[in-house]
Amino acid sequence: MSSRPSAQYSLTLRVELDRRPGQLGLLASAIGSAGGSIGTIDTIEMGDAKAIRQVTVMAGDQDHSDSIVAAVELVDGCRLIEVTDRTFELHRGGKLFTGLKAPIKTRDDLSMAYTPGVGRVCMAIHDNPDKAYEFTIKSNTVAVVSDGSAVLGLGDIGAAAAMPVMEGKAMLFKEFGDVDACPNGLDTKDPDEIVATVRHFAPGFGGINLEDISSPRCFEIEARLQEELDIPVFHDDQHGTAIVVLAALINSCRLTGRRLEDLHVAMAGAGAAGVAVAKILMGSGVTSIVASDRHGAIHTGRPDYQDGSMNLPKVWLAENTNHNQLSGSVAETLDGADLFVGLSGPDIIEAGDLARMNPDPFVFAMANPTPEVNPEAAAPYVRVMATGRSDYPNQINNVLAFPGIFRGALDVRARRITEEMKLAAARGIAEVVTDDELSEDYIIPSVFNGYVSPCVASAVAREAERSGATRAERVGA
Amino acid sequence: MSSRPSAQYSLTLRVELDRRPGQLGLLASAIGSAGGSIGTIDTIEMGDAKAIRQVTVMAGDQDHSDSIVAAVELVDGCRLIEVTDRTFELHRGGKLFTGLKAPIKTRDDLSMAYTPGVGRVCMAIHDNPDKAYEFTIKSNTVAVVSDGSAVLGLGDIGAAAAMPVMEGKAMLFKEFGDVDACPNGLDTKDPDEIVATVRHFAPGFGGINLEDISSPRCFEIEARLQEELDIPVFHDDQHGTAIVVLAALINSCRLTGRRLEDLHVAMAGAGAAGVAVAKILMGSGVTSIVASDRHGAIHTGRPDYQDGSMNLPKVWLAENTNHNQLSGSVAETLDGADLFVGLSGPDIIEAGDLARMNPDPFVFAMANPTPEVNPEAAAPYVRVMATGRSDYPNQINNVLAFPGIFRGALDVRARRITEEMKLAAARGIAEVVTDDELSEDYIIPSVFNGYVSPCVASAVAREAERSGATRAERVGA
Repeated sequence: MSSRPSAQYSLTLRVELDRRPGQLGLLASAIGSAGGSIGTIDTIEMGDAKAIRQVTVMAGDQDHSDSIVAAVELVDGCRLIEVTDRTFELHRGGKLFTGLKAPIKTRDDLSMAYTPGVGRVCMAIHDNPDKAYEFTIKSNTVAVVSDGSAVLGLGDIGAAAAMPVMEGKAMLFKEFGDVDACPNGLDTKDPDEIVATVRHFAPGFGGINLEDISSPRCFEIEARLQEELDIPVFHDDQHGTAIVVLAALINSCRLTGRRLEDLHVAMAGAGAAGVAVAKILMGSGVTSIVASDRHGAIHTGRPDYQDGSMNLPKVWLAENTNHNQLSGSVAETLDGADLFVGLSGPDIIEAGDLARMNPDPFVFAMANPTPEVNPEAAAPYVRVMATGRSDYPNQINNVLAFPGIFRGALDVRARRITEEMKLAAARGIAEVVTDDELSEDYIIPSVFNGYVSPCVASAVAREAERSGATRAERVGA
Repeated sequence: MSSRPSAQYSLTLRVELDRRPGQLGLLASAIGSAGGSIGTIDTIEMGDAKAIRQVTVMAGDQDHSDSIVAAVELVDGCRLIEVTDRTFELHRGGKLFTGLKAPIKTRDDLSMAYTPGVGRVCMAIHDNPDKAYEFTIKSNTVAVVSDGSAVLGLGDIGAAAAMPVMEGKAMLFKEFGDVDACPNGLDTKDPDEIVATVRHFAPGFGGINLEDISSPRCFEIEARLQEELDIPVFHDDQHGTAIVVLAALINSCRLTGRRLEDLHVAMAGAGAAGVAVAKILMGSGVTSIVASDRHGAIHTGRPDYQDGSMNLPKVWLAENTNHNQLSGSVAETLDGADLFVGLSGPDIIEAGDLARMNPDPFVFAMANPTPEVNPEAAAPYVRVMATGRSDYPNQINNVLAFPGIFRGALDVRARRITEEMKLAAARGIAEVVTDDELSEDYIIPSVFNGYVSPCVASAVAREAERSGATRAERVGA
């Protein structure tokens, strides 16, 4: 059977119904019996004998969609006119357009926005390069860059196929941070070529958001670009995740009166995000972390470390965490842990294993769509549960971080995103939840909470100003 | 003295005036006496004793602006509150923003435009790459690419300083062709690096508009990108100019009953645009062209051709035009010419020299802002006069060409812009002028004529379909 109906598999059905009492009920019952969840029902046309209706229906997956359509086709007195897949329809022609801040309707408009007037602005920037921040889109525009090598859970699908994700990311930048964003899908996976390409097109941008680049290439690419460019370069898959995890942890501690310094952390998943989470936790005072891959706890005593076959992120984890060289399976690392961080795959932990954690444990099981441990089964053993899913409380979602981080960085014309700015962002997210609101089911705010981005932006800008990572005083500050 | 007042040097003056009869007249007279041209006058606030007014004033240049401001400061009963340069104000924060075609206001929006729904669209493109044209911005988006090496008349000012021009170009693409466009300023001038950079970021774009790249590098860069990419690559400084020149020439012939095949053409200027103009004229049937640089007529008998010191565009012109090896100054090449094409510099020709041209000659003097020959002085000798300026009739302006060309190319998902598509574009522009309208002062339509882009787009798309340079049937055709 399919997973629960959601908008991602929603359809718009246009149907012609006989006009007689109960006809709409027949249709609705057929959809319901097929397991479809009805959204809106609109009337398109109301004739004497027939009515044309438009019904949106959510399904669980593609097969489920097909079976709902088949059920509708069997309804007496109902003729199916058209079926539209709403997700594909939303993507038709792409999701972005080029917006103009001023019209070009007259010769005067033309002579100010383009030749000859534009030449004066060009020369002002030529004489003082910092003016680019005043008079071009660099002031508010981020490049969203991916080689399509590690896209969502889809793997290495290439730049062209990754474009819908990058366009979506650009939408989130705009919607949540009022940051303009330009998706750039690169058709090379060679780190040298990626670094050179981004460096060459960077002048027009105020920041670079790296996205969905596979490990370990992402480390080198990010580090080299940070070295070579004087604008923020931020690999969201690493740092966005880490920042939101830290925000959730800060509030879990706040709720339970614990200190980060005292926590024992067990982590499953040793990719790029795992390293970033370990780094930010350590930067916040956590000292005890044991990370595991599918072979169990990672440490310098493992044969793959000893023989040099361990990959880069795991080597980093081996050398910087698990100082007691604890070994054993993921489940065994839960013994005496206060926090479990899952950045791995579905159902790798039995709920019962959580009983061996310290009292009132926190479990952040972020594998998507199926978490590392079933949330319902885990509930009896867990004080705070967070996942990557929007249909459970406490969704760990990068959208809470990156729009505000770049908003703040752009506002102060930051040269880079420092570790301290990331910590400030996490605290900014955490602080949005008031003492009254804070509870086991509300340790992090909703992505639609309008305070999140401004709070993150303000915290990031303030920290950038404090540390001198900026070019300018904050706009409007 | 300054040149004539224009919007490029316009100011907004905010002033506080005593409320008494004649006070506004005093201000207006002072501005007028200083040579300023008043646009709108708005009332901001009307008090009992004082009124606050906002006045837009056009000046001829920066010194002129300053002297107008000084004159206003001397007006009795007037206090200058604020002076704003309207061109710089228009550029503040850049001229473009990222527009979203759909809102992201609910979880359902998010799950269709981003994860998890977006994954279905990614996989559809992964399975069939042509779907990128259906479901991403590639369908309607062009990259505007420059290294800032030959920006307008400003020369090599670099990528950052060129951004206002590229943003302006993007505005024109959108306003006149409904083509989305993304400015890309490249911080390298190395042709290999430019080609590699554009090739790498090309997957998300439906076309590449090269812009303001200096000669002769522009030839190699364009040719290599055309070879390596399967989307249109078009260097507007060459081909846009050539297309509009041809359009003007087609209508000049139409007006005077001449045939392109019979014309003798004298051309001043032997850069990239000169080569493009020569090529398109030859492709349209013109056989007699003599091009000159500052040393006079170009031919294979010249010492700089013989000793190999001649640059690439001139070598091309030497080998492909002036088959009779005519030598002499630019002025001398006018003997018996039907058309003079100026793509060079100010005032290189005396109006009297035009008397040696054939009867009813055409003079397209496009040097900007000062044409090769003064239009007023040339008038007695010339049948059709065109310039690059908006304040004379018959402005040869690339805006007539590039938005419609890319509109048409995108509509049929063209793989390239062929020579035939360029000819079709020129005919498309020419055909917008009806027989009734056609006159010496109206051989090409205004850039604000709303028929131009659709006519060009249609002609280009039709030709692309005819020749098979497309991926698809035209949208809506």
